[in-house]
Amino acid sequence: MSVLDRINQPNDIKYLSETQLEELPGEIRQFLIEHLSKTGGHLASNLGAVELTMALHLVLNFPEDKLIWDVGHQSYTHKILTGRKNEFDHLRQLDGMSGFPKRSESDCDCFDTGHSSTSISAGLGFARARDLLGEDYNVVSVIGDGALTGGMAFEALNNAAELNTNLIIVLNDNKMSISENVGGLSQHLASLRTAEAYQEFKSGVHSSLERLPYGERVVRRIRKTKSSLKQLLIPGMIFENMGVTYLGPVDGHNLNDMVRILQEAKKVNGPVVVHVQTEKGLGYLPAEEHPAHFHGTGPFDIATGKALAKKEKATYTDVFSTVICKIAAKNDEVVAITAAMADGTGLKRFRSEYPARFFDVGIAEGHAVTFAAGLAAAGLHPVFAVYSSFLQRGFDQVVHDVCMQNLPVVFAIDRAGLVGADGETHQGVFDLSYMGMIPNMTVLAPKNKWELADMLRFAFRQNGPVAVRYPRGTAYDGLKEHRAPICYGKSEWLCEEMQIAIFAVGNMVEEAVKVHEILHERGYDCSLINVRFVKPLDQETLLKAAKEHLLIVTMEENVLRGGFGYAAAAFLSASNVNTKVLHFGIDDQFVQHGTVSQLHERIGLDAQSMAEKIIETYKTI
Amino acid sequence: MSVLDRINQPNDIKYLSETQLEELPGEIRQFLIEHLSKTGGHLASNLGAVELTMALHLVLNFPEDKLIWDVGHQSYTHKILTGRKNEFDHLRQLDGMSGFPKRSESDCDCFDTGHSSTSISAGLGFARARDLLGEDYNVVSVIGDGALTGGMAFEALNNAAELNTNLIIVLNDNKMSISENVGGLSQHLASLRTAEAYQEFKSGVHSSLERLPYGERVVRRIRKTKSSLKQLLIPGMIFENMGVTYLGPVDGHNLNDMVRILQEAKKVNGPVVVHVQTEKGLGYLPAEEHPAHFHGTGPFDIATGKALAKKEKATYTDVFSTVICKIAAKNDEVVAITAAMADGTGLKRFRSEYPARFFDVGIAEGHAVTFAAGLAAAGLHPVFAVYSSFLQRGFDQVVHDVCMQNLPVVFAIDRAGLVGADGETHQGVFDLSYMGMIPNMTVLAPKNKWELADMLRFAFRQNGPVAVRYPRGTAYDGLKEHRAPICYGKSEWLCEEMQIAIFAVGNMVEEAVKVHEILHERGYDCSLINVRFVKPLDQETLLKAAKEHLLIVTMEENVLRGGFGYAAAAFLSASNVNTKVLHFGIDDQFVQHGTVSQLHERIGLDAQSMAEKIIETYKTI
Repeated sequence: MSVLDRINQPNDIKYLSETQLEELPGEIRQFLIEHLSKTGGHLASNLGAVELTMALHLVLNFPEDKLIWDVGHQSYTHKILTGRKNEFDHLRQLDGMSGFPKRSESDCDCFDTGHSSTSISAGLGFARARDLLGEDYNVVSVIGDGALTGGMAFEALNNAAELNTNLIIVLNDNKMSISENVGGLSQHLASLRTAEAYQEFKSGVHSSLERLPYGERVVRRIRKTKSSLKQLLIPGMIFENMGVTYLGPVDGHNLNDMVRILQEAKKVNGPVVVHVQTEKGLGYLPAEEHPAHFHGTGPFDIATGKALAKKEKATYTDVFSTVICKIAAKNDEVVAITAAMADGTGLKRFRSEYPARFFDVGIAEGHAVTFAAGLAAAGLHPVFAVYSSFLQRGFDQVVHDVCMQNLPVVFAIDRAGLVGADGETHQGVFDLSYMGMIPNMTVLAPKNKWELADMLRFAFRQNGPVAVRYPRGTAYDGLKEHRAPICYGKSEWLCEEMQIAIFAVGNMVEEAVKVHEILHERGYDCSLINVRFVKPLDQETLLKAAKEHLLIVTMEENVLRGGFGYAAAAFLSASNVNTKVLHFGIDDQFVQHGTVSQLHERIGLDAQSMAEKIIETYKTI
Repeated sequence: MSVLDRINQPNDIKYLSETQLEELPGEIRQFLIEHLSKTGGHLASNLGAVELTMALHLVLNFPEDKLIWDVGHQSYTHKILTGRKNEFDHLRQLDGMSGFPKRSESDCDCFDTGHSSTSISAGLGFARARDLLGEDYNVVSVIGDGALTGGMAFEALNNAAELNTNLIIVLNDNKMSISENVGGLSQHLASLRTAEAYQEFKSGVHSSLERLPYGERVVRRIRKTKSSLKQLLIPGMIFENMGVTYLGPVDGHNLNDMVRILQEAKKVNGPVVVHVQTEKGLGYLPAEEHPAHFHGTGPFDIATGKALAKKEKATYTDVFSTVICKIAAKNDEVVAITAAMADGTGLKRFRSEYPARFFDVGIAEGHAVTFAAGLAAAGLHPVFAVYSSFLQRGFDQVVHDVCMQNLPVVFAIDRAGLVGADGETHQGVFDLSYMGMIPNMTVLAPKNKWELADMLRFAFRQNGPVAVRYPRGTAYDGLKEHRAPICYGKSEWLCEEMQIAIFAVGNMVEEAVKVHEILHERGYDCSLINVRFVKPLDQETLLKAAKEHLLIVTMEENVLRGGFGYAAAAFLSASNVNTKVLHFGIDDQFVQHGTVSQLHERIGLDAQSMAEKIIETYKTI
């Protein structure tokens, strides 16, 4: 009987012997590697947090105590320890277990997460509610050093110091966000890690001291007491300065030390940061060596670490990656920004080809957008490459800093539309609405890989903000023959027939082609229009289509409200055109995890369902 | 000839004698007090920044050097010194000078601002663009201590430390945002200000030292060198820890000291924070004593400081202020959150009546929303009272932390719709779109003051997120007789006639009543529907109205895209109903400053223009 066999419900870990506790981390790692090699998932972050999670489970009581995982992709061991071991066969699969904490899965998950830097805010909410309701439990927020670069984590720390309630903040410091960390804060954390860094700090202090009266004497005195002063000056000063107690650093793979420091933290009055040093990917050599690659992985061969599914076709990200470098080669004004996602957004190549023109600002989308605005106002032409759901963090900055000044910033919005296994927190199904509503903004969506390239080139020819949104995964390589130049505000006719006209946005063009086939088989005629410009609307094409057809159909992988379809219908309705408009999109719901084609079927965005609905609607006219 | 008479274009200040420079601050203050007593405007912040601005103008060259004002409501002296003195008669008036920096006004305004905490990000953009383009100029970002609590300022500092380019960050520390500052950071800044605070810090250091070997000896040694170590340990540690040089603090009302330290800052390699201490409202006693009151002011009597226009009627903010306290009296679970706007949002009274249930989180809307989500997940029922344009900063958190978990958080969205004199950065004309697109969210808008009260009570009876949006200024007190209970998802018929049906959202009901009168005078019948629920749509009422009328009209003070009208039109179009829909709202443009009624006329949202358009459209049917 393995130790893991004894873990079947929350708090079971507390009944293990010391020897069993020593064996458990290895078993959990084995379990994670085996399962994730089949299902895929977030491997490196979870391998790094095994002992940390065990220590938390030894020290806390579930579900009474509240544990909030920042981002949440490191919560697999927590899932194992709270009775969800058997769900790993269906991890991140339709109707299976989520890859993130979910209140709907377990009462040991007290707060859903997915985006970065939220855990201190949420934890502080729990802590103050506990106080006000006269309850008595521990609240622990676990946040990575990467997530700490997100501004709202700082806002929350600032507020935690003010409220001065009991809240344990575990800083899981693995020197990485998804890629390597950047910024002044990470340098400070590094200084907490290494004694060498003290030298640098000290020499800075010395030179500033030399300007003071008696400075020399103070410097001499400090030199004498160096080792003690190091303790005094360095650790956690940034937290202590804000009024938050700092404990650590502690080795996050030493269970006993971890338990001891967490017990200590429970006794602290007010907020306390426990600085835990972990190694991302620990226990699986390929993940230790390439933690960014094993951040989120598909199925892989355990022996080699190689992906099982060979990638055959280019993704939209690949296309962006190549084209943005080509554009930059011809235009010195082009600079590129990422918020800690150089790999995911495809900017890695740009970084190596144009290091001085590349900026990784950390997990800081708000700053990224306004920084881009500053660059643009000063004469450059920046592109911010970002996932659709994360750009939501910079919404105000897009409105206020970019669009209000009509500045030439290109938004390369990756992972737009349904993203699949990451589920509801990561679905990029709002951008057509939140970007489309902003004055001065132009919003484009390409139908296939060639069009993405054309649209990016087009975007850099404009003298104002342009968003190009494209989905996760393989780039569509059909319709190669349709490559009419991008004209501002103009849609593209793919075929002109009678009866029904389909306006499809971006990747929905591929579905529309299938719908077109089904309709033909069933004896219906159907024009196909590639929308291209979600904003501004191509009013001329809409009017022409409405006049020449009996039914207008719109298709977009976005919430309906605020999207293309509603704008098109409203325009036609205000234009004395009575042609009926049928909308396909996401109807006021959050969409769970699953493969994109499963999700399409579930929400009625697959070609078959749409074709049926179109025929049914057409018959009522 | 006054000294001010010599200031007519940028850099004129450099030709003044020392005596003249001594006289200028008084003249500028006199000028500001006299002008603002007539036009209104931001007084206290500008009175505090007179010498700071003069020093910047003595040290910098305009327009070559780039100066970015955070928020920008302290830029009046800068406007005076850059040749805009004569525009103050029309400050914040339609087509007159903006109250914020505007690139369209002067080439000495390099970046438009209005929202908080953007200046370091934008400044860093300028600085890096300068480096890349091989140019040579100074970049200065002036940020208040309040704005520094906004997370994106921290994100930018973090990035500035990494990029290590020349950037001067002037920390204008007046211990205030609009109200008094809160949070751990402000406590740290306070410790930079006062010697007393050192004692506290020291005792904290001592107690942590006592745990170390030789701790006692180190403590004794520190005691001896106290005064020097104070300089060493305290100032700017939080900045230095992040790798940003810190200079100061300096008296922000001592011109010579200011000039000296800024000259010093220009020599620093890499980012440097210059900590300047100023007093908000300095030079006008009523503003010194009540800086929050004189933050933004209407016309006032100079002798007494009293407002000239007597407030006669309650504002929507007043109604919220009263009702939220009544609701809290009956429901212990109700707690209230503000992001540094207790006065503006009307939560001041709640704060004094329920101090333990009140939270001012600082200028930190993102954190505020997720903090609210945490409170709600832990069993409380929070309200976040916030201005519409500032809630944009928390958009992702509303989607990801509140709505995805369907948590009971009430959003009391003040300053929704057009706000008048503050202009384009503050117009709250996007919330119906960005809140309306989110699954699980309910969006309400009251027609008059009684309905705001009813809607707030209704909101706290729901078990999910509810937004109630209401405009700035006097609450409409017409239609008192229409007070049918709020039923979930149901609009309210105000009168039922033939021909035309007007659906009006919130404050547009008042305009719709006027339109109704005009239409009657012109011989047209017209039904009036108070929308109440912008989301979800009242489909039943829409269908009924569409079937019984020849023209549907929608009215909302919001951008059209994503708003009520487009959703209504799309629904009808998809429902086999061909009734024409005419939309009134804001058509894809940013709206400048002016009175709300002037702006209505300018954009065609006044009753007369709308009535004409309706008649014209009706005739074409």
